[in-house]
Amino acid sequence: MNNFVFNNQARVLFGKGQIANIADEIPEDSKILLIYGGGSIKLNGIYDQVIDAISEFEYHEFEGIEPNPSYEKCMKALEIIEENEIDFLLAVGGGSVVDAAKFIAAAAFFEGNDPWDILALNDEVFDAIPLGVVLTLPATGTEMNGNSVISRTEYKEKLAYTSPFVLPLFSVLDPQVIESLPKIQVGNGVVDAFVHVIEQYLTYPVDAKIQDRIAEGILLTLIEEGPKVLADQTNYDAGANIMWSSTMALNGLIGSGVPQDWTTHMIGHELTALHMVDHAQTLAIVLPGVMHVMKESKKDKIIQYAKRIWSIENNDEQKTIKEAIDRTIEFFESMGLKTRLKDYGIHVNSIDKIVDRMEARGDINIGEHKLVGIDEIRKVLDYRN
Amino acid sequence: MNNFVFNNQARVLFGKGQIANIADEIPEDSKILLIYGGGSIKLNGIYDQVIDAISEFEYHEFEGIEPNPSYEKCMKALEIIEENEIDFLLAVGGGSVVDAAKFIAAAAFFEGNDPWDILALNDEVFDAIPLGVVLTLPATGTEMNGNSVISRTEYKEKLAYTSPFVLPLFSVLDPQVIESLPKIQVGNGVVDAFVHVIEQYLTYPVDAKIQDRIAEGILLTLIEEGPKVLADQTNYDAGANIMWSSTMALNGLIGSGVPQDWTTHMIGHELTALHMVDHAQTLAIVLPGVMHVMKESKKDKIIQYAKRIWSIENNDEQKTIKEAIDRTIEFFESMGLKTRLKDYGIHVNSIDKIVDRMEARGDINIGEHKLVGIDEIRKVLDYRN
Repeated sequence: MNNFVFNNQARVLFGKGQIANIADEIPEDSKILLIYGGGSIKLNGIYDQVIDAISEFEYHEFEGIEPNPSYEKCMKALEIIEENEIDFLLAVGGGSVVDAAKFIAAAAFFEGNDPWDILALNDEVFDAIPLGVVLTLPATGTEMNGNSVISRTEYKEKLAYTSPFVLPLFSVLDPQVIESLPKIQVGNGVVDAFVHVIEQYLTYPVDAKIQDRIAEGILLTLIEEGPKVLADQTNYDAGANIMWSSTMALNGLIGSGVPQDWTTHMIGHELTALHMVDHAQTLAIVLPGVMHVMKESKKDKIIQYAKRIWSIENNDEQKTIKEAIDRTIEFFESMGLKTRLKDYGIHVNSIDKIVDRMEARGDINIGEHKLVGIDEIRKVLDYRN
Repeated sequence: MNNFVFNNQARVLFGKGQIANIADEIPEDSKILLIYGGGSIKLNGIYDQVIDAISEFEYHEFEGIEPNPSYEKCMKALEIIEENEIDFLLAVGGGSVVDAAKFIAAAAFFEGNDPWDILALNDEVFDAIPLGVVLTLPATGTEMNGNSVISRTEYKEKLAYTSPFVLPLFSVLDPQVIESLPKIQVGNGVVDAFVHVIEQYLTYPVDAKIQDRIAEGILLTLIEEGPKVLADQTNYDAGANIMWSSTMALNGLIGSGVPQDWTTHMIGHELTALHMVDHAQTLAIVLPGVMHVMKESKKDKIIQYAKRIWSIENNDEQKTIKEAIDRTIEFFESMGLKTRLKDYGIHVNSIDKIVDRMEARGDINIGEHKLVGIDEIRKVLDYRN
């Protein structure tokens, strides 16, 4: 096991009816900016629950955060914040809304040239407006970490940053929100959480048995419960298991003391930036190729994954690896995600463009051993052409 | 899954050499009271490492915390704290030292009649001196929770309390401390952590798949790595797995959203209070009886435990349960712990005394269904007579 520091101060309120308790979690006399997306929360009753809960606070609203939230949209919130002396952000939505709120929180206190530099130049965040979350979609894990991914439309860029200052003060996870989600978002969420685990698990062994077992526990739960939720979104228990799994997948715990990869995400972000493919769909396209192309350096862990997750017992290592990849693809497809570039109308010419962009940005030689170079990125994308 | 709130703000510094980093974790200009036990830390070098790390602070020392730390001893620290205007406690030791520091931290700010009332009358703790931990023995999990167990020698009482104010600010977990531990403490620690998991896992199912899998992951890790550490205490990787497992066993995570039992601990505390049996040894004596006596209400989970932990495949439920209990006993014995009352020279007459004490204190009708009454406590103790 590698040395690590683990600290996650976010407070999770999990379960039915927890939205009603958020007033106790927000600092007294806060002036709240309520941040949300396209208005689905007004149709499913979550908006009303939130408004009821915060009725004793002064609050303002900032709506219309889009999927893959944009820098341009986020920047518009800063004016409202200044004008109304906002000192608390309440994000009500999925990963996009929460990530937008995190960027707004940091941008409001940013003293450099342009808050975009937090993403583009890794400018450090020294402070942020405190924020709380009411999660409406289990997927990204952003509700219990300090990560945020923001796109800049004019540049077709999608970049990530991390800061402890944008860790939510609290996050409400009420699995009932799953009931009214579009089916595609349920599948996307399960696959997103699945690949978060894989990025921290499918690397090389460091004898971190407890991290491995927890990672495997999350994967097994997603595999068992994902199809149940997809079949019946009112299955509360299965939804609760998915929701807690997706939070646990990226709250720092399973990634502590182990190597991490994140190749699949980095390549995937390019597919979203260039072709607007949903984040989880990009992961479903890219991961099989990463497993295949990097199978030698990931061999030990892929075989462990094959045995413990898919019960594949085979003395032939290559066959075991192939079967593990195939089972992974099958699982993604069973959750409603297509796994080939052409399924999304992406032409093979895009591969060169993606490689060029990643090379230009210096996003090469990535992965746990820094072995994923230009050739490997090309082969990864080519694997599911 | 049941509703829950999860929040654990303790900062874990895990790995080789982390003691050297504690100065950065202690608030500037703190006046530290260093709290430790019988002086083993002066023989194994940990004391020197700690002193080196805090050399820029003003510090005082309070030594001699005994196993099953006593109220009487803890109270003596209060004078030193007042005299020297101590505003930070640094506990360097195992569960006993940390629990003592937690009680001292709360007692120093207690405004009631007698700090013992925190334990005896559940008087609420409203504030405490901040504390940090350098753990020297993986076992109790106290390094990442707000629990503390204190004994009052004159009353032969051993009682527990919980408060978020005594959660350590930080805990250093350096697995190298295991090297110099007496063998019996290694075995005790593994069994202690094992039973902590069982108390939160072997109840009745609430379809909390992710909590179950994590609990099982900890149990499997303890079973795999415990014997390795016992055989070779310089096996760093196995020690690291044991150490992180024992912290994860009782940091609130696996107990969130599920029923909990704690019958084994409550009965076990009586054996320590009356007969000075080591805490983990009491658990090794009591747990098999709890599993046997409560096997009907715990049936579903015992069978899940039998299958997933011990790979017992048997269509006969009663045989499966019996085998699961036997394998558990074997594991405890393999870690060097005896599992019968008579192994510790405890006469059968003690059973009545324990039952009477628990009845007098109102500690009856305990367990996840409150089904463990006087008769059940008697049967539990009688099972491993």
